[in-house]
Amino acid sequence: MTLNKWQRMTEWPLTVLALVFLLAYSWEVLARTHVSLCETTINVIWIVFIVDYVVSISLAHDRKTWFKNNLLLLVSIMLPIFRPLRLLRLVAVLNVLNRTSGMAVRGRITLYVCSSVVLLIYVGSLAELDVERNAPGTTITDFGKAIWWAFVTTTTVGYGDMSPVTWQGKCIAVGLMIAGIALISVITATLASWIVDRVSDEADKRANETESETTRLSSNVAELTDAVNRLRDDIAKLRESPTADDRR
Amino acid sequence: MTLNKWQRMTEWPLTVLALVFLLAYSWEVLARTHVSLCETTINVIWIVFIVDYVVSISLAHDRKTWFKNNLLLLVSIMLPIFRPLRLLRLVAVLNVLNRTSGMAVRGRITLYVCSSVVLLIYVGSLAELDVERNAPGTTITDFGKAIWWAFVTTTTVGYGDMSPVTWQGKCIAVGLMIAGIALISVITATLASWIVDRVSDEADKRANETESETTRLSSNVAELTDAVNRLRDDIAKLRESPTADDRR
Amino acid sequence: MTLNKWQRMTEWPLTVLALVFLLAYSWEVLARTHVSLCETTINVIWIVFIVDYVVSISLAHDRKTWFKNNLLLLVSIMLPIFRPLRLLRLVAVLNVLNRTSGMAVRGRITLYVCSSVVLLIYVGSLAELDVERNAPGTTITDFGKAIWWAFVTTTTVGYGDMSPVTWQGKCIAVGLMIAGIALISVITATLASWIVDRVSDEADKRANETESETTRLSSNVAELTDAVNRLRDDIAKLRESPTADDRR
Amino acid sequence: MTLNKWQRMTEWPLTVLALVFLLAYSWEVLARTHVSLCETTINVIWIVFIVDYVVSISLAHDRKTWFKNNLLLLVSIMLPIFRPLRLLRLVAVLNVLNRTSGMAVRGRITLYVCSSVVLLIYVGSLAELDVERNAPGTTITDFGKAIWWAFVTTTTVGYGDMSPVTWQGKCIAVGLMIAGIALISVITATLASWIVDRVSDEADKRANETESETTRLSSNVAELTDAVNRLRDDIAKLRESPTADDRR
Repeated sequence: MTLNKWQRMTEWPLTVLALVFLLAYSWEVLARTHVSLCETTINVIWIVFIVDYVVSISLAHDRKTWFKNNLLLLVSIMLPIFRPLRLLRLVAVLNVLNRTSGMAVRGRITLYVCSSVVLLIYVGSLAELDVERNAPGTTITDFGKAIWWAFVTTTTVGYGDMSPVTWQGKCIAVGLMIAGIALISVITATLASWIVDRVSDEADKRANETESETTRLSSNVAELTDAVNRLRDDIAKLRESPTADDRR
Repeated sequence: MTLNKWQRMTEWPLTVLALVFLLAYSWEVLARTHVSLCETTINVIWIVFIVDYVVSISLAHDRKTWFKNNLLLLVSIMLPIFRPLRLLRLVAVLNVLNRTSGMAVRGRITLYVCSSVVLLIYVGSLAELDVERNAPGTTITDFGKAIWWAFVTTTTVGYGDMSPVTWQGKCIAVGLMIAGIALISVITATLASWIVDRVSDEADKRANETESETTRLSSNVAELTDAVNRLRDDIAKLRESPTADDRR
Repeated sequence: MTLNKWQRMTEWPLTVLALVFLLAYSWEVLARTHVSLCETTINVIWIVFIVDYVVSISLAHDRKTWFKNNLLLLVSIMLPIFRPLRLLRLVAVLNVLNRTSGMAVRGRITLYVCSSVVLLIYVGSLAELDVERNAPGTTITDFGKAIWWAFVTTTTVGYGDMSPVTWQGKCIAVGLMIAGIALISVITATLASWIVDRVSDEADKRANETESETTRLSSNVAELTDAVNRLRDDIAKLRESPTADDRR
Repeated sequence: MTLNKWQRMTEWPLTVLALVFLLAYSWEVLARTHVSLCETTINVIWIVFIVDYVVSISLAHDRKTWFKNNLLLLVSIMLPIFRPLRLLRLVAVLNVLNRTSGMAVRGRITLYVCSSVVLLIYVGSLAELDVERNAPGTTITDFGKAIWWAFVTTTTVGYGDMSPVTWQGKCIAVGLMIAGIALISVITATLASWIVDRVSDEADKRANETESETTRLSSNVAELTDAVNRLRDDIAKLRESPTADDRR
């Protein structure tokens, strides 16, 4: 069994489990009923993710590289505070959907960024609410406030009307800030690439002209070769004619 | 009747209606007199926009694509809180004015961004003032404060001396934050494209030299062709002269 | 007298006046002595700047374009609140110093941005202190606090420990925010251009190879032309020899 | 002794000293025991750094250029408040490790930025805690809060729940803000370069086609040269045959 085969096999089941995890987590935080059922579900899914991680790394060809490329996955499994990162698997699914639809690079990046941001703000708000709700001196007391805080943090506006008071809440906040910077960077970079392309359209036209110049040159050389070949025929005839002359 | 024809027909009337909407909305929020007249005007214009949306989608060739490309339009029609988005039609008019004046890509982007930002800050302030003014615990109590808050939010500075307390106000704030990030991104991207171009001026000069190298090569081949042709003439004369020789 | 000649003539005197303006303004705000002398100096310089504006626009070839390109200059002359903008003339002097030293585009942009930011933060703090100092409820009470506030605003951090309370102070704040966004944009764009160049060094090498391929091709064609010419000589000799044959 | 040799000789000892400095500084601020031992260590290392600076500048070929390129080093030596900058030497070591591993430009930039940011936030928090801890009215009272404050500042979020009150603390804050802007810029620029490359892959393919066009042209010219050479042989045979004719 290769890693590739394993990943193809587990891709959809794990995505479904990530969705179930999202639902169980949302239910636990927002409804606050059936807490023990939700916790059990979350723990079972956690064990499945650990099993997947262990199997994946044991199947990997180059374990060191795989380990380095999947540090975020390890973090999301080892530290309960970062377990919402497991939902990044949902973003990974976009990769599958995309491969078939053949979108352009920029379109794909935009799709990833938008989905990741929506997911991050939703899950960040949930996690923040979960850890802050009962802290003394907290200002994040319901989901609406948590969503508002997540937006204010991710966009780096930071009014300060609400800010986390627990260390777990601050960890989540740092995660959202970094995500926010990444978001701004990706949007700017994608736009820059688009504008550079738009502006260089004219330059491209000039390049096409150069190309056509080369093509024209190529056809000139072809004509020239023809001319030289006809010349050889002429000379061949010339060589034949003196021979004819000799025979006479 | 095609969608194109419909859009050309309705372009100017709808722009005028958007302007009337802006005036009625400003009057209602700032002057707070003739509220019922303003409301009626706004509602009539709303119905016209719904009619335009329905006609447009029924005339569209590929309805699914049109629907996807005009999600923002649907949002601005369906949700009263987002009705200021209808004013984006005023920015769309710039498109028409521009097409004729033949500005460069970067000039056009700059013009769009500046107009959109001015419009967004103005309308965002209006909308924020409208929903926050009478909320308990609000800090946004007059138009000057609303404008100041809109600037602080859009530039992502976020002092926190004023921040929305109602959920509608928070929605508008999120809109302004996203607009602010878009603004920073567009400015950065446009500048980056400009600097890349400036720096690559030298590279362009080198490219021109390559081009001239190709041109020189082309003229070399032309000379060569001439030489070969003269050669053919020489050989033709050579063939003639032995014939003359034969005859003697 | 042309506009160019006028500008060359007035460049240094106006720069010196801008420096005097900076000193008088700093003295007035920071030392708060000789206020009337400082005010007189500032007003005299103001009149000189108005005269320069009027003479410049009357000498301009295309007055409409000149007017559009110098809107910021007009604003700095007409609105007392924006008079610190007159100091941008000091940044303009860098242009002169630079033209001679032949720096690269990116070096020049970096120099401009750093000087402008230092000047803007200094003058912004001065102006803010000037208008806020005696306002009721102000937090910006000395120059150190004003500098700190200017940094917090320009970098878009916006703690909110200090924020302007007067409308003039808010105008200056908006100016600094916009400058801050411009600053971030210019830094990012310059860096992006630098990285793109670094990465494309390899691509450049490949381009050089293509160029050398063209050069090699060109020399091949030259050799070929030589070959054809020698061929012509051979044929010429061939033509001569039958003539020699004839004579015998 | 040249500057290069001196730098190679002192590279590792100075890096170790920078590490010892980091440990002594951390111990002094966090443990608050053995303060006088830590202070002595820091002062001894300081003297070593001054000696290195003096020796380096006296060995430098072009002292003015070296002075300009090492302003930050001078600042870190002269001003006690900026002594954490000495730790930038630790980042400089990455340069050595990197040169051998042959990473690509973007990979190297990413590595530098991540290490610098981690180091800056850690040392910034330490320094901030050191100067703010005992100030009246401070909010930064333990290391956790200082780290949280450093993140909020560097990402330019700026909630304002904590902000420095001493002028030294504000200097450090300005340093972190500038670092934050640099961080956002570098991330954006690196991403922009990556996206531009990804998008231009297609354009590259087209460029390759042009190259192959040139290659084809080149082989055409080679064929043509062959044809002309065979032509010369034919003519040479032609010249020989009449001579043979003459002998007969």
